Amino acid sequence: MLPYKSLLEIDKNEKTPVYQQLTNQLTDLIRKGVLKPGQKIPGTRQISELLDLHRKTVTRVYFELMVQGWIETIPGSGTFVAKNLPEVKPARLKEGGIISSTRAGFPFENKPFLKRELVRSSDQLHLDDGFPDPRLAPLAELARAYRSNLIRGNSYQKLGYGETKGTLWLRQQLALYLSETRGLKINADNVMIVRGTVMGLYLTNLAFLRPGDTVVTGTSCWSSAIAGFQQAEAEVLTIPVDENGLVVEALEEICRRRPVRMVYVTPHHHYPTTVTLKADRRIQLLNLARQYQFIVFEDDYDYDFHYLSRPLLPLASADDAGVVLYSGSFTKSISPAFRVGYLVAPEEVVEHLSHYRRIIDRQGDNMLENAIAELLQEGVIQKHLRKALKEYRQRRDVFCELLSRRLGDEIEFQVPEGGMSVWAKFDKSIDPGKTAAAALRNGLYFSHGLQHNQQGIELNSTRLGFASSTPEELERCIDVLEKNLCLKGFIS
Amino acid sequence: MLPYKSLLEIDKNEKTPVYQQLTNQLTDLIRKGVLKPGQKIPGTRQISELLDLHRKTVTRVYFELMVQGWIETIPGSGTFVAKNLPEVKPARLKEGGIISSTRAGFPFENKPFLKRELVRSSDQLHLDDGFPDPRLAPLAELARAYRSNLIRGNSYQKLGYGETKGTLWLRQQLALYLSETRGLKINADNVMIVRGTVMGLYLTNLAFLRPGDTVVTGTSCWSSAIAGFQQAEAEVLTIPVDENGLVVEALEEICRRRPVRMVYVTPHHHYPTTVTLKADRRIQLLNLARQYQFIVFEDDYDYDFHYLSRPLLPLASADDAGVVLYSGSFTKSISPAFRVGYLVAPEEVVEHLSHYRRIIDRQGDNMLENAIAELLQEGVIQKHLRKALKEYRQRRDVFCELLSRRLGDEIEFQVPEGGMSVWAKFDKSIDPGKTAAAALRNGLYFSHGLQHNQQGIELNSTRLGFASSTPEELERCIDVLEKNLCLKGFIS
Repeated sequence: MLPYKSLLEIDKNEKTPVYQQLTNQLTDLIRKGVLKPGQKIPGTRQISELLDLHRKTVTRVYFELMVQGWIETIPGSGTFVAKNLPEVKPARLKEGGIISSTRAGFPFENKPFLKRELVRSSDQLHLDDGFPDPRLAPLAELARAYRSNLIRGNSYQKLGYGETKGTLWLRQQLALYLSETRGLKINADNVMIVRGTVMGLYLTNLAFLRPGDTVVTGTSCWSSAIAGFQQAEAEVLTIPVDENGLVVEALEEICRRRPVRMVYVTPHHHYPTTVTLKADRRIQLLNLARQYQFIVFEDDYDYDFHYLSRPLLPLASADDAGVVLYSGSFTKSISPAFRVGYLVAPEEVVEHLSHYRRIIDRQGDNMLENAIAELLQEGVIQKHLRKALKEYRQRRDVFCELLSRRLGDEIEFQVPEGGMSVWAKFDKSIDPGKTAAAALRNGLYFSHGLQHNQQGIELNSTRLGFASSTPEELERCIDVLEKNLCLKGFIS
Repeated sequence: MLPYKSLLEIDKNEKTPVYQQLTNQLTDLIRKGVLKPGQKIPGTRQISELLDLHRKTVTRVYFELMVQGWIETIPGSGTFVAKNLPEVKPARLKEGGIISSTRAGFPFENKPFLKRELVRSSDQLHLDDGFPDPRLAPLAELARAYRSNLIRGNSYQKLGYGETKGTLWLRQQLALYLSETRGLKINADNVMIVRGTVMGLYLTNLAFLRPGDTVVTGTSCWSSAIAGFQQAEAEVLTIPVDENGLVVEALEEICRRRPVRMVYVTPHHHYPTTVTLKADRRIQLLNLARQYQFIVFEDDYDYDFHYLSRPLLPLASADDAGVVLYSGSFTKSISPAFRVGYLVAPEEVVEHLSHYRRIIDRQGDNMLENAIAELLQEGVIQKHLRKALKEYRQRRDVFCELLSRRLGDEIEFQVPEGGMSVWAKFDKSIDPGKTAAAALRNGLYFSHGLQHNQQGIELNSTRLGFASSTPEELERCIDVLEKNLCLKGFIS
């Protein structure tokens, strides 16, 4: 053994702490080659006895040296100078520095249905899934309200832990807003704030679905909803969707055969095909839900944007049986980046869901929630919606005129009564996937629409969102689209 | 049948839409008593034929009347004027107005373990669970950075859909910050932004635990973590915690007997008892994890606050086997209201977890994430932490001096090496529950500590957080506490 007692000089009266002295000196011995790579060094007990140090001090030093990569412990064998010494211990690791590990040291299973294409917003030309134009959003007002809610008031209460259901102010303002605009007969206790529809649906699935439960959706459906039901291990049955929305008669047939736990519906307007669920079917659906006691998850993502004189009120407005869970968000009314949504449900359901929320996401962003409450109370959001609605109606008209004039032979569509996108059915000779890829190479993003084909049904259709582009931008989009149409069977 | 054809006068040339005319006229007939409560009225087909209207128009009117409460449909019997008419249709429903339903119209099961007491921050005197003082937080800087990230740049990209893992800027800044302060050898691909530790742990459980899997924690443990494991239907085994943290030897015994999937650990400092996991046990724990391939969930909620010269580096800094999932948040370094936390893990684990994140919560708040990134890059958060650390050390010293001088006979405690609270063990004659209740009546909040008693072990202890109160406030807290000590067996 090396003469450690003389190599290591620890002075307990020095200002530098003992553990630091020992760490530095051992590192020096390794750096200078006195201790060589792979060489065995004494254990912590031996060193502590040799130097008359507390054992804990020495284990701490060894741990630090191990962390820094100077030494290695091999269980059962002892401690060794590392075979691969760190060149120079970097004071600051740069991006792309040494990574401990890229692979997990434990086994796990993949779920292929969770690996879905991620839609991201880009700043090139786009005919997106139906997003709002954030250039119209009241951003300055929102920033102002956010700041004032952050700065003023009692900071301990405001910046500490709050209510999992969301701030009372926003729940109150939403209860009023939804009463006025949607005829919902609710108060704040019927409202739970969530991080958007995705979380609202997840919580509902978590709280109410068990493996094997039957969930019914349209044959065409939002792929994120389907993924959520798959994660919950529900059995998803589909019913047709026609020009009047879900064919509720087909649902009745299912109900007669087996227990249905939940029906997922986007009555206004059906996602992705943009049709409205007509009034008689709404009555029929509610009657079935009451009769068979299933949950109606009403995803009303689009309600604020309708271009007719007046939209049909939501299913939730006519629900006196406590079967509808009504979901909405500010994704369309402000922008997707503000992750604030809401679930409206009977009080005991809200209470129940909030228990689940707690173990997923303790609470929302109080400042943002109160900022939105302030803008609702001041009428800023309502004013923005009136402005946006007018603008989007004009964009819809421009876009539909362009589509039918320039691409009338290639694309079939109905002018949507509301919402932010057109459900475009390509002529059967055209390949939407290839067309989307070719357009992307030429500066236009739109989706190939394959995610709407749940059971591999050949829809040959996609959503073309018009709301987030000005009429000039829409014209440029059509230019690119027209030039990049690809036929099936040909290499694009 | 009433002479509907003459009672209802529809003029298709009028400006008011037909459906609106019909709605108004039917409402009027009911209001005037021409149609009486409970009276049967013709179906939509009959009315449409009588008035030569489209059937759809009439069903729409009936739906609206139903929603408004004027009529009722009874499946199989027909449509009737409602028995209980709405007095006056309120233009604006006030808070506390008519509620559709407080009860669910479908059956569901409760899980008692999810109904836990919710800790909320209040503005009275408090010795909380160990929260920071938001009066010290860089709120103005944060509001400024939030605003600038909201206003500047391409709004479509910034305010649209982004990366589920969190913004690249924050992941990069965190990779640097965690490398510098904690010796983690990582880059942005090893970081996933979440809404705090609650979500990080939930995602980990969701992705990696199956019903029946064994999870090991200390006998005293964070109750939210336990609730999460129960929700995942894991079997929770506990091992003792002494003055050096988790007794890892006991874990080794468990590993020999059965497969362990995950160990939940708060090495710096153990929650709730505030002790530090000592270096030799850290090495032992990592060796076991490597050998038995279990996950170490390292919840390092407290790392930035240590009052000794230097803390032990996290377990994650010494993990070259990809077994540690490292979790932290800005709850302590800014305040609980900013729901931004992070998970650090091998790249493939981050990727895997992000798929689950997507079905729960599409993405975080881009503006807030980038605002925090900006403050990290500018060093604002680091500067705040230095200031706060100094302040909290002083508060710790003041509080511990007060505790031992004024309550030395009633409360036993160790001066914590770091963190924001003292683990206070009451003398066995004292009842913490009654004492907490009596103190609350006299203006001081502190927790009875019963939530730390997982298996009903009589700890007679609680956490007393000192960091969020000034020395003067702490003195007032001790005044109230001293006057309200309640003995066991007596009525307080």
